[in-house]
Amino acid sequence: MSYIPFKGVIAYPVTPFDDKENVDIPLFKKQVERLVSAGAHGIAPLGSTGVLPYLNDAEKEAVTEATIQQVGGRVPTLVGVSNLTTANTVYHAQFAEKAGATAVMIIPMSYWKLTDDEIVKHYDTVASKISIPIMAYNNPATGGVDMSPALLKRLLQIPNITMIKESTGDIQRMYYLRKELGDDVAFFNGSNPLALAAFSAGANGWCTAAPNLIPDLNIALYNAVQENDMEKAKAIFYQQVDLLKFIVAKGLPRSIKAGLDLLGIGGGNFKSPLKPLNENEIAELDNILSAVGSKAMA
Amino acid sequence: MSYIPFKGVIAYPVTPFDDKENVDIPLFKKQVERLVSAGAHGIAPLGSTGVLPYLNDAEKEAVTEATIQQVGGRVPTLVGVSNLTTANTVYHAQFAEKAGATAVMIIPMSYWKLTDDEIVKHYDTVASKISIPIMAYNNPATGGVDMSPALLKRLLQIPNITMIKESTGDIQRMYYLRKELGDDVAFFNGSNPLALAAFSAGANGWCTAAPNLIPDLNIALYNAVQENDMEKAKAIFYQQVDLLKFIVAKGLPRSIKAGLDLLGIGGGNFKSPLKPLNENEIAELDNILSAVGSKAMA
Amino acid sequence: MSYIPFKGVIAYPVTPFDDKENVDIPLFKKQVERLVSAGAHGIAPLGSTGVLPYLNDAEKEAVTEATIQQVGGRVPTLVGVSNLTTANTVYHAQFAEKAGATAVMIIPMSYWKLTDDEIVKHYDTVASKISIPIMAYNNPATGGVDMSPALLKRLLQIPNITMIKESTGDIQRMYYLRKELGDDVAFFNGSNPLALAAFSAGANGWCTAAPNLIPDLNIALYNAVQENDMEKAKAIFYQQVDLLKFIVAKGLPRSIKAGLDLLGIGGGNFKSPLKPLNENEIAELDNILSAVGSKAMA
Amino acid sequence: MSYIPFKGVIAYPVTPFDDKENVDIPLFKKQVERLVSAGAHGIAPLGSTGVLPYLNDAEKEAVTEATIQQVGGRVPTLVGVSNLTTANTVYHAQFAEKAGATAVMIIPMSYWKLTDDEIVKHYDTVASKISIPIMAYNNPATGGVDMSPALLKRLLQIPNITMIKESTGDIQRMYYLRKELGDDVAFFNGSNPLALAAFSAGANGWCTAAPNLIPDLNIALYNAVQENDMEKAKAIFYQQVDLLKFIVAKGLPRSIKAGLDLLGIGGGNFKSPLKPLNENEIAELDNILSAVGSKAMA
Repeated sequence: MSYIPFKGVIAYPVTPFDDKENVDIPLFKKQVERLVSAGAHGIAPLGSTGVLPYLNDAEKEAVTEATIQQVGGRVPTLVGVSNLTTANTVYHAQFAEKAGATAVMIIPMSYWKLTDDEIVKHYDTVASKISIPIMAYNNPATGGVDMSPALLKRLLQIPNITMIKESTGDIQRMYYLRKELGDDVAFFNGSNPLALAAFSAGANGWCTAAPNLIPDLNIALYNAVQENDMEKAKAIFYQQVDLLKFIVAKGLPRSIKAGLDLLGIGGGNFKSPLKPLNENEIAELDNILSAVGSKAMA
Repeated sequence: MSYIPFKGVIAYPVTPFDDKENVDIPLFKKQVERLVSAGAHGIAPLGSTGVLPYLNDAEKEAVTEATIQQVGGRVPTLVGVSNLTTANTVYHAQFAEKAGATAVMIIPMSYWKLTDDEIVKHYDTVASKISIPIMAYNNPATGGVDMSPALLKRLLQIPNITMIKESTGDIQRMYYLRKELGDDVAFFNGSNPLALAAFSAGANGWCTAAPNLIPDLNIALYNAVQENDMEKAKAIFYQQVDLLKFIVAKGLPRSIKAGLDLLGIGGGNFKSPLKPLNENEIAELDNILSAVGSKAMA
Repeated sequence: MSYIPFKGVIAYPVTPFDDKENVDIPLFKKQVERLVSAGAHGIAPLGSTGVLPYLNDAEKEAVTEATIQQVGGRVPTLVGVSNLTTANTVYHAQFAEKAGATAVMIIPMSYWKLTDDEIVKHYDTVASKISIPIMAYNNPATGGVDMSPALLKRLLQIPNITMIKESTGDIQRMYYLRKELGDDVAFFNGSNPLALAAFSAGANGWCTAAPNLIPDLNIALYNAVQENDMEKAKAIFYQQVDLLKFIVAKGLPRSIKAGLDLLGIGGGNFKSPLKPLNENEIAELDNILSAVGSKAMA
Repeated sequence: MSYIPFKGVIAYPVTPFDDKENVDIPLFKKQVERLVSAGAHGIAPLGSTGVLPYLNDAEKEAVTEATIQQVGGRVPTLVGVSNLTTANTVYHAQFAEKAGATAVMIIPMSYWKLTDDEIVKHYDTVASKISIPIMAYNNPATGGVDMSPALLKRLLQIPNITMIKESTGDIQRMYYLRKELGDDVAFFNGSNPLALAAFSAGANGWCTAAPNLIPDLNIALYNAVQENDMEKAKAIFYQQVDLLKFIVAKGLPRSIKAGLDLLGIGGGNFKSPLKPLNENEIAELDNILSAVGSKAMA
């Protein structure tokens, strides 16, 4: 049987920098601790939220180790190891496994659009070099490649690729994915505004940066779904939809860091060319956070 | 209080033609009777499924009268009266009201892309000439205009525009619509593959041609939602999603007529240039219908 | 040999209405006379600029007859006869032929997306009922169907389909069209901002509403191309590109009528729901017209 | 006065690898020598064709030095130094300057979509650290950011940003760019199938990988434009358009390397996950090359 170590709300931390644009590991650990304490069901460093592609090797390794150390086995960890080249992806996947990651997440990043055969070969090479499970991640908006349900079906034949993360933002894709792949495939939703629709479509989990700001609401949505209470799930979802829309529209690293600053936790600095939200955007986020009551809860 | 005469599954009949491309009214009445008998909560002639834009005035009027006569007040009727010009829209809206329609549906058809002010003026003119409620219909794929939530909000200030039908196929639009328009606005889903997601988002009803082929499954989905049973709704939805996908992909008039032929009810002919599905497509539809068991039920 | 009655600048008149939304035939004739006098190489009533789809049968017939009467054989005429149904397209094509049109233009209008076979059958039926040449018109933005080069090749096998009008706005399409169809196929550009690129790609002519406002510049561009003077063509093109961009961005009927008003010729009223440009837009157009000197020339 | 060191045909070499996926510098030098000998007016290593984003720092530096050494000042060099982070872009820009590059090309690569202010700051920081000119490169398809004419205008106010490379594939963009930026701005076309249209629009040069395969035809097109002979330019363009279309459709590194193999020069291997064209594609390219006569010329 395939090993699927995740379910529920998988939280994506940001990567905070100090004023010299070096990773601020102590602040990162503090942020991770808060996610675990709040009840997140998994921790996923070095995703898009964690600005993976902007980091050098040493930074990626430091973040990986800090995560695993801070989480301390309380929940599973899912480390992003995607890279343009196959060789570098193998390198980081092996590092993550050795450091103790529960699983790795891989998106077929592309500058030159990859063919299906190139993608299969890429995953197959990486999979053959590690023993932990892989979550294949489809997000054409960031990765530049749109993996069809048929291609994902091919990938799932590689033994340790056991999970799919789908982030096209189109709920219909999730329906056809499940029809194509069968009822027992593990798929995860990576599009925040689709959280309710994806759970009602049968998603195993929700990969999201939102728990940095509103962990209670995110987890309450999952619980309502587990209780099969559609009305309650809908009510909880509409409480948070404005925030989910905002963080996607403004970019996850910028909006999550601004929110962490507003909550008094501290989001840390950015690596250039990325810059913080402007004042108007921060004021808008402050209003949204106040409306959902998360400033009181923080 | 605004008058909202619809909820549940609103069924869209096709318009059948004879071999001289004249509307076949007896067959149309037979199809409508079947929809009402099967439990549809409303009947909506002269929609896209009913190839409204291809009909001349006499044909539109005959279909309107045949619907109202056959339904006989058992369920409410929603008559499509959209036209490129405001004058013709007024003409058909007044005809529908006089014939006894419960409400009319209007999409701002556009050859030349309309401005927001033009759209508001168009609806306002029509609304001022009739007393029955109007459902404003947003479907950029067919109408060529995408009405923003802000524009729909303006339209809802016109007294007898009381309902919104949203058919962009993007569930996120429905969330933002409800947030923008308030909890008690009546919005209806016009995208078949979004049926489950839209109900879980709070849609009042589902405007669909699917009940021509699988009325029991469509109504069962609505009932599961009313019972607040998410698991049951999901299971029923996945039973029908292949059919919903097929009829949208192949075009509603073509696929519904082919299905009615397969079910032994008879779909009628087409008006040129529209032609029937080809043999391979019909065989594919036959397989899908057999899989959902609707041939046994018909 | 196929008969190709057009080349150069084919001018598209608007359809002016009076204050009761009836077609203003005297003003229409005045506008047509001005186009012919200014040197346009052909006149094409009932195009998109002439709001064909908004007119009833009587209006279409009146405009057709008025055009042929006013032009009086000085230049060839190209009458738009497109309609959603094949039967109505035949009707109007036959009317145009009988009235004395040189050729007809047909776009496969679609509410329901047509298959290639449906499109071929549609053209074939119309072509078999008339003897004058047909220009097949590809414009997915208004017609809703994008005819591939392969499909256009099929259409050109119908004897009296002798010309292609291409309006996707993508110059690459024109290159591949010519490669697919051969050097001697007659293709015409329907995208105003592509006027220079299309002539440099070998287009036989330019279908445009711009001569209503700047006929001298439009014709000068064609002449520079005929003289094989690329530098001169470029200079003349850049003199008019702001106007070409404006009329496309704001909609041809609205912007041409506003321009005719500014030039003192008179554009006439609109048929609802279409409305005039707003004041700011008219002021912007006035500036552009002044910059190109057309107000002095009018 | 701003310094604009380029015009004409700027040739982009591939980056060849050996069978261990290390850069094959001797083969690279051979390929560069051929481009210079064939008459290319400039050499641009480390572009998209040169798979810049897939290379590590040592590889980038080796390619930069090999180019400058092999070119030996016979034509100007334009070195790609784009990077996701500002710090790395500065590093490579400074390396290129020190190594003797004539200018650098920079596209604002983005994983997270950059704001206009972030882009300006990014360019400004890099520009302040070097003295050689910068070509700002707009290519939303690969870079993920579409820089508006207004933003490009802001960038041109930075003293050593003196050139724009435009690769949206939309010729209209080039017209509006020139209107916005003024007649004397230096803009270069980066879209192969637009070569003719761009020159007729006034482009200073053509940034292209095609000279690896058909240098004579590429240069002949530029010469015909210089001679103001539109008919000749058109004829030469249509001779090469099939090849230009092919290399863009199949990906520049794959198709150029396959072509170099077919021509007997040798294209070198790929870095995974990129793989060679398949057999059918190679056969198609062989046919196209034979048709344009380049195999005889090579």
